[in-house]
Amino acid sequence: MFVTFEGIDGSGKSTQARLLVEHLRATGSEVVSTREPGGTPLGEGIRQLLLAGDRVGNWAEAALFAAARAQLVEDIVRPALARGEWVVCDRFIDSSLAYQGLARGLGLEAVLRLSPPSLDGLWPARTLLLELPSRVAAARLAETSPDRIERVGGGFIESVAAGYAQLAERHPERIVRLDATLPADELAAAVRGKLGLGERT
Amino acid sequence: MFVTFEGIDGSGKSTQARLLVEHLRATGSEVVSTREPGGTPLGEGIRQLLLAGDRVGNWAEAALFAAARAQLVEDIVRPALARGEWVVCDRFIDSSLAYQGLARGLGLEAVLRLSPPSLDGLWPARTLLLELPSRVAAARLAETSPDRIERVGGGFIESVAAGYAQLAERHPERIVRLDATLPADELAAAVRGKLGLGERT
Repeated sequence: MFVTFEGIDGSGKSTQARLLVEHLRATGSEVVSTREPGGTPLGEGIRQLLLAGDRVGNWAEAALFAAARAQLVEDIVRPALARGEWVVCDRFIDSSLAYQGLARGLGLEAVLRLSPPSLDGLWPARTLLLELPSRVAAARLAETSPDRIERVGGGFIESVAAGYAQLAERHPERIVRLDATLPADELAAAVRGKLGLGERT
Repeated sequence: MFVTFEGIDGSGKSTQARLLVEHLRATGSEVVSTREPGGTPLGEGIRQLLLAGDRVGNWAEAALFAAARAQLVEDIVRPALARGEWVVCDRFIDSSLAYQGLARGLGLEAVLRLSPPSLDGLWPARTLLLELPSRVAAARLAETSPDRIERVGGGFIESVAAGYAQLAERHPERIVRLDATLPADELAAAVRGKLGLGERT
């Protein structure tokens, strides 16, 4: 089963992905845990490029995410699914759609066009969208890495959150909306519930 | 005027681009000289990723070239053309079409689909295709960087050369085929002739 976590920075994606992976492993499942951009040597190199501070235009950014995703799918996701394992990924295609397609205004169709054909048909079985007010996310980020606060301004993060909500309305069969203001353990239990995973006794 | 040089490694593109730029500057033209992938900080970072030796799948490779090109066009090519300057570029879209589209078999349409819409309509006014037998190119490369010879095997370079020839047949109004076995100065004169540039007296 291919599961992705989505949401704005500070929504708790990484924590929830880790808790889900721990639960799955504790119950005997084989799990590949990965993230995007990243997850492969090439993808991590692309992640560094995106963080390096050089000017990255909107189209170049979208193409870089597409490149990282193509490599991740080819090297990690498809092989793991072929082995019958779980794949838990922190961000995937919905990030491109929400950030570049909607918040940056490139359009959903244009972003999907940039996706290599090798991704065709590979959608997550379930996408867990962690939603919380942007001011809460900003406060969380301020505790750990204040410099990132600069990126949480000018209404951009609100646009991303609205983009995610729009995607969830379009794909209710796949995208599950969760209240990310819940304490981490309660949220983790909600995640397991949405995936039909029983509690361990 | 936007001019690009294309051809397999060892065909003399960099030398001819340099000679053309020198001629243009000597005759009073403003020229922006660039290369792809590269030409911007992001593009040079992408170039390093491509050369780093990590596994790069065909689709990821095509998307990385598209990202580098999007940035180059936005930051360098369009501004220079808007200022009325010459732009001389060592490799451009035809490299993606010949290498990824034809030699690697992704298809021309698929490679064009990966090109960001921001590139639409921006084709070189003239593309100088430097053609020579692959064994001659291999011999030239062996003199300077023997390790690259490994890449000139298995018929791949022949496929690229055939791809370039196919592109030239499709776009005879834009792509000019030149015999790259000529001595550099004679080839440079042929380049100038094809661009309608008179000799200095």
